[in-house]
Amino acid sequence: MESRERSFTRRELSNELRTMQYRFSRRAQRTDASLIRRMFNYAADVPDHVSLGVGIPPFEMPWYVTAGLTEALQTEASHINKYTLGKGLPPLNEAVAERLKRKGIVADPKKEILTTAGAAGGIFCTFMALIDEGDEVVIPSPAYANHIDVTVFAGGVPVTVPLMESQNYELDHTAIENAITEKTKAIVLCNPNNPTGTVYTEEALRTVGQIAKARNLILFEDNAYEFLTYGGKRHFSLASVPEYRDNVVAFFTSSKEHAMTGLRVGWVVANEEVVEKAFGVQDLNYICPPSISQYAALAALTGPQDHVEEFRQEFERRRDVMCRRLDEMPEFFRYVKPDGAYYVFPRLSEDVLERRSPKGKAQQRFGEIQGKFQTADTAVALDLLYGAGVVAIPGIAFGPEGKGHLRFSFAAEEDDIHMAFDRMGSYWRRAA
Amino acid sequence: MESRERSFTRRELSNELRTMQYRFSRRAQRTDASLIRRMFNYAADVPDHVSLGVGIPPFEMPWYVTAGLTEALQTEASHINKYTLGKGLPPLNEAVAERLKRKGIVADPKKEILTTAGAAGGIFCTFMALIDEGDEVVIPSPAYANHIDVTVFAGGVPVTVPLMESQNYELDHTAIENAITEKTKAIVLCNPNNPTGTVYTEEALRTVGQIAKARNLILFEDNAYEFLTYGGKRHFSLASVPEYRDNVVAFFTSSKEHAMTGLRVGWVVANEEVVEKAFGVQDLNYICPPSISQYAALAALTGPQDHVEEFRQEFERRRDVMCRRLDEMPEFFRYVKPDGAYYVFPRLSEDVLERRSPKGKAQQRFGEIQGKFQTADTAVALDLLYGAGVVAIPGIAFGPEGKGHLRFSFAAEEDDIHMAFDRMGSYWRRAA
Repeated sequence: MESRERSFTRRELSNELRTMQYRFSRRAQRTDASLIRRMFNYAADVPDHVSLGVGIPPFEMPWYVTAGLTEALQTEASHINKYTLGKGLPPLNEAVAERLKRKGIVADPKKEILTTAGAAGGIFCTFMALIDEGDEVVIPSPAYANHIDVTVFAGGVPVTVPLMESQNYELDHTAIENAITEKTKAIVLCNPNNPTGTVYTEEALRTVGQIAKARNLILFEDNAYEFLTYGGKRHFSLASVPEYRDNVVAFFTSSKEHAMTGLRVGWVVANEEVVEKAFGVQDLNYICPPSISQYAALAALTGPQDHVEEFRQEFERRRDVMCRRLDEMPEFFRYVKPDGAYYVFPRLSEDVLERRSPKGKAQQRFGEIQGKFQTADTAVALDLLYGAGVVAIPGIAFGPEGKGHLRFSFAAEEDDIHMAFDRMGSYWRRAA
Repeated sequence: MESRERSFTRRELSNELRTMQYRFSRRAQRTDASLIRRMFNYAADVPDHVSLGVGIPPFEMPWYVTAGLTEALQTEASHINKYTLGKGLPPLNEAVAERLKRKGIVADPKKEILTTAGAAGGIFCTFMALIDEGDEVVIPSPAYANHIDVTVFAGGVPVTVPLMESQNYELDHTAIENAITEKTKAIVLCNPNNPTGTVYTEEALRTVGQIAKARNLILFEDNAYEFLTYGGKRHFSLASVPEYRDNVVAFFTSSKEHAMTGLRVGWVVANEEVVEKAFGVQDLNYICPPSISQYAALAALTGPQDHVEEFRQEFERRRDVMCRRLDEMPEFFRYVKPDGAYYVFPRLSEDVLERRSPKGKAQQRFGEIQGKFQTADTAVALDLLYGAGVVAIPGIAFGPEGKGHLRFSFAAEEDDIHMAFDRMGSYWRRAA
């Protein structure tokens, strides 16, 4: 014992001056704080900022969700605090199956639906289960950054294909097909698309479905904003088409529809084999989605659904408010009116892009940001934050095709939308 | 357009008979449903089973947690449903820092504490951030299976070193040191240990701390059961020792202490650099731990703590009940009395191990189970389930050193403990 202690001491001496050196995994080294999160962190520098950055419904939960959860805390007191062991609380998965039926999707609540910690949890678990080192994943871009980042984290190679502004960001199946190689494993569709607000047509989706089927590819379908469509547009899911069904891994969530982003409840809808593997990953990861949130989601799905249409109408109204403000500033913005989600993705005019060199703190922040994010739109966003107190997300955060754009969210109070545009207008006009 | 459609049709024809072939990632192929989860699934075959399998406190949440959450649903209605953007709800991280102080651990709530979706979420995010393909991870075994499985999922190589029954499963620092190679990245300690219930001595822990420091290794310290120690034993964390602090990545949870396993709240306590990387992984994974659960955890940590000691005493009493029952059956069991957690890990007698060939459904299930889990203890566990209606977890589920054992949980109602032992006794004696 004594000799062993001495041997430790010798070793310790040789390491005396060495502080702990962390060697993170390659996957973690590839993972940076997202540009979106960086912008939120920087916003803390500007106390009176107004934010069009965040993608969170600004509402409270519907009253009956709070009431249902409050009641369940009493009546289900001996269950509500415990792990849920299956693929979700059984009545919740059944309610989801019922809800999906109305979209034409038939799914066995025991085998083809997995309740997850938000759509994000489902995306992470299925990507980790399906994407291997070197697998290529075709992602129409501008894209939800998470799809790109999780692909990279899983060891895959994101292959972005442009959604063309001139085509109203509609899916370009020729571009998708041309991007497919022997290494392609999957195609990712976000519908309605974050950040462009595009609602893909059934025809365009079916063509991509054919491609996926013909090439034996997974079709990840992120439907996080599915209830948020405007101007009579309708959301369509390829999970409702039997012949593409085995290719589709569809993600749904109650985050937006029931204003419960923080509760972390979503669903993977897929072939039994995929659900089983994702279930295994989830078990290793966070064991199960939060039990109390599943009770809240059950109350949400089985309660009156009036607020869903109310939310939708309210977002449509705020979209129109934001579009009117954009229309008043053609010297700064050009944009495609979004048909869905709660984002608009205007291109900045050359004038703005060329003249907005960030100064002071904004310049310092610009220097801190990783190489690929050091674009003119990032410079503009930082200048806007520190110069005008407005938070917007640089387009580059959504893939290389987002360069030169900003993402504005109209999941903001109407007053804040007006204040943000007032500030931008006067800031840029003053500087002109 | 037409010609393209024809080309799809040709391709489709060539694929007409092909059904979707899933190729899962290597990491997912390495991941099987855990033997624990399998046992729970099989238990559904036996409607009147009594379970000593599960590791969930059989209590309701303390009244003030339910009351605090119910109140927060009203008073915090505009926040409680939304993502938490930082490393946890700020007052929660501060309450955790206060709580840790009482254990001698000083941690900055903004930088050195990350609130996660249970300890499991924290383990997953930090292992994924730190363990790379080929990294060796030394794990004293019998071990919590999750530590082995997440290591494998991350691409690492678990190197189990035996905890010797003859040494009361105390840490064997010589064995740990001998297992270290150039490829070793980390050592995992579960304290109190699941499944053996061992509470490691401060001396043994400090020796392992020295090894980790001398070799520049991460020391993952899973403290999920830290408040559950018996017979005057005390839990010690190496995170309280400044010189080992940078090596230690410590996991804590409110799951057991406040009977809220299903709520998914835990904490990583580590150096700022590690916390930052784990935070990035968590953001990609499930975005944030559930907001409402964080409010519940805040109520739990800031409320009266009387129930913690009540829970502890109740578990100690149930441990004693279970040990008495084991003492009455020396022909079947030999065991080390656990000083912590809520598990006992008896070795089965040769007589039981040799004579328990599973029959009928048990035999079929035994055939379904993966090669490495096809051990005599698994055979005994399946025979017990289908023959006597008792759920216990085969020792092999906790690493190769668990062979020949069963894990019984005394996080069960006292009546169930008695019923399970009555059934085992009469089943085996009848068969004798």
